[in-house]
Amino acid sequence: MPLINENFLKLKTGYLFPEIARRVKAFTESNPDAAKRLIRCGIGDVTEPLPEAVRYAMHEAVDEMGVRDSFHGYGPEQGYEFLRKAIATNDFQSRGINIEADEIFISDGSKCDTGNILDIFGKGNKIAITDPVYPVYVDTNVMAGNTRDADEKTGAFGGLVYMKCSPRNGFVPPVPKKKVDLVYLCYPNNPTGAVATREQLTVWVNYAREHGSVLLFDAAYEAYIQDPAIPHSIFEIEGARDCAIEFRSFSKNGGFTGVRCAFVVIPKTLMGTTKAGAKQSLHALWSRRHSTKFNGASYIVQRGAEALYTDEGKSQVRALIEHYMGNATLLVKACKKAKLKVYGGANAPYVWVRCPEGVTSWQMFDKMLNEANVVITPGAGFGSAGEGWFRISAFNSRANVEEVCRRIAEIK
Amino acid sequence: MPLINENFLKLKTGYLFPEIARRVKAFTESNPDAAKRLIRCGIGDVTEPLPEAVRYAMHEAVDEMGVRDSFHGYGPEQGYEFLRKAIATNDFQSRGINIEADEIFISDGSKCDTGNILDIFGKGNKIAITDPVYPVYVDTNVMAGNTRDADEKTGAFGGLVYMKCSPRNGFVPPVPKKKVDLVYLCYPNNPTGAVATREQLTVWVNYAREHGSVLLFDAAYEAYIQDPAIPHSIFEIEGARDCAIEFRSFSKNGGFTGVRCAFVVIPKTLMGTTKAGAKQSLHALWSRRHSTKFNGASYIVQRGAEALYTDEGKSQVRALIEHYMGNATLLVKACKKAKLKVYGGANAPYVWVRCPEGVTSWQMFDKMLNEANVVITPGAGFGSAGEGWFRISAFNSRANVEEVCRRIAEIK
Repeated sequence: MPLINENFLKLKTGYLFPEIARRVKAFTESNPDAAKRLIRCGIGDVTEPLPEAVRYAMHEAVDEMGVRDSFHGYGPEQGYEFLRKAIATNDFQSRGINIEADEIFISDGSKCDTGNILDIFGKGNKIAITDPVYPVYVDTNVMAGNTRDADEKTGAFGGLVYMKCSPRNGFVPPVPKKKVDLVYLCYPNNPTGAVATREQLTVWVNYAREHGSVLLFDAAYEAYIQDPAIPHSIFEIEGARDCAIEFRSFSKNGGFTGVRCAFVVIPKTLMGTTKAGAKQSLHALWSRRHSTKFNGASYIVQRGAEALYTDEGKSQVRALIEHYMGNATLLVKACKKAKLKVYGGANAPYVWVRCPEGVTSWQMFDKMLNEANVVITPGAGFGSAGEGWFRISAFNSRANVEEVCRRIAEIK
Repeated sequence: MPLINENFLKLKTGYLFPEIARRVKAFTESNPDAAKRLIRCGIGDVTEPLPEAVRYAMHEAVDEMGVRDSFHGYGPEQGYEFLRKAIATNDFQSRGINIEADEIFISDGSKCDTGNILDIFGKGNKIAITDPVYPVYVDTNVMAGNTRDADEKTGAFGGLVYMKCSPRNGFVPPVPKKKVDLVYLCYPNNPTGAVATREQLTVWVNYAREHGSVLLFDAAYEAYIQDPAIPHSIFEIEGARDCAIEFRSFSKNGGFTGVRCAFVVIPKTLMGTTKAGAKQSLHALWSRRHSTKFNGASYIVQRGAEALYTDEGKSQVRALIEHYMGNATLLVKACKKAKLKVYGGANAPYVWVRCPEGVTSWQMFDKMLNEANVVITPGAGFGSAGEGWFRISAFNSRANVEEVCRRIAEIK
């Protein structure tokens, strides 16, 4: 019988979202009436219609596929030139950032990209993550064998460097005292809704350059930044081309969670090393990985993503962001009124709320479910530093969010 | 600087298709007139329009995404129930095969699936591949560290078991004398166009059950089978549920190479083992892998794939297959007329041709390019047993194939 990858067995079975689903199911089954008024602010999934410009472009692309001369078979694994150029121009060059189209790799999603990136790295790297954190960064490292077992009590995996995030450091961790090789950073942050300032990111880039670390920078929520002083890309920081990979997605700006398109930016100047000390281009390694284990994103989907960069597309994305950020503003206000300590929600679609004194994350989850019939996400699901916190997602209709605000006011 | 995955450095730089592209480019640049009459029968990519039923379903799905109540965000990572059920019913249950919908995992492509499957297996498995072979099976094992370096002369990677395929064994290798843990089999075969009979597959299933091996069965070309006695699925063979994983794709039946959708079948009864000898469900491991490193295939694409199982969709697929197999029949006939030894093309869209005595694969490639202005694929690109052979793809328009046949007749 073939040997299995035993690292999988280190993963905890009680993964966050399935456990939420289980509790919600139990609640709705025993409270059919209350279930009817249930509002879900748990998972960070968009709710509003796909922009018209995207739908128009996808209809056109579907029609193209129906004619022999404009039919598209296998596309370039790295993505179509039209999309890579649109991204390079609009997301980077027009903001004064030096990123070329051929440093952009189109994919079918950021979850895939942030997991798959580990394929190009070797064993023995010291890896740092924030706490709380998007669980996929941790779990993919566990699966790749980059950790030891999880601690029974804290759930922390041996071998990972956990960087605690709290209001004291503005949810942006200080650089580690020791050298680490890979650092996962996500700003605007999931789950805390915090952003990193130019100064904070500069400290990180300087640290990375000094120690030869690579920053794995997840900018999936950059479109939600309202403050013009906050960088949208790690590549706005001088020197980042030598020490960073950036993950971007169309999920949260264009509402592509069900359409599937994302991209990775790997500068050609970025290097890793062999054990013997020979420098190797991470761009070349990822290109090889992408060509061998991926066959390009859907042509139709890439045409849809391209449409996000038209004038129409941009204005439709702006409207979506305004909608969700309007929700976030209302949620922050409602939490404050209810005397809850609240963070985030200003440059991100997530509101990060302190549980009342002595109440745990999961107790708060149950309380919100039973008393307010609102599904939130318990902070503990994002790591031990998330204990005592909960996340409210602003992805919803305005009517639902207003109703959630009313119910928050009534909670005892 | 982070350590890189040094296994990547074992990969040969002269990958097949880039080398073909390089030679074609050089030819067209120095022969602009001849370049105008170039016909490409190299890469195995479909050429005919996407079926109408698929386009209709995708248009509908795009429209659904434009309305809040029918908008689809994140879908189930394993795929939508509507597609998994359509597959289970039409591809398996209606053929008397015992496969359930929840044993089917939808993805964005078979190249991804056949590479990613290695994530769930451990180190130290003995792995067997055919020679010639689809290069992705080999390269993904190299990248995962399952091989040693390549032999300078043959290009064969140390640690892999190569099973030679030739006319003598009908391009279906006999089972190995020693025990192997994982075996890649692809029937109808790329590149040889051969099929495996029920008896041959039964021998393999019996071998796998006896030795506790797992067969990784790639059935991407099953729709091309014309002979009703040839199995379409490994699961038509008794006992395969205990020893096989099957890879399927919509690329070559529905023409989805640019649309992107495929699936893997992993029976719940299939087991791997820990080093300590504890049995582990491969279905559960893959489900965890899929949930953590993948976020579902596009909703719009899945609706398109579902349409292939309607009456209209089925008849449109049949028409595509008839078209390409009509091409294959013409190519086989033309090769025979030119006194070339030819195989395949009867139940597969690939024609596998012996080079004239003393002519190597790449010499034949150059000859076909320069004299006939036809791009073929040199057999040596698929492994050392492919030396002295070349592959002609039947994916083309009828007019182009007829022209290729005329030119084959003129070759000296």
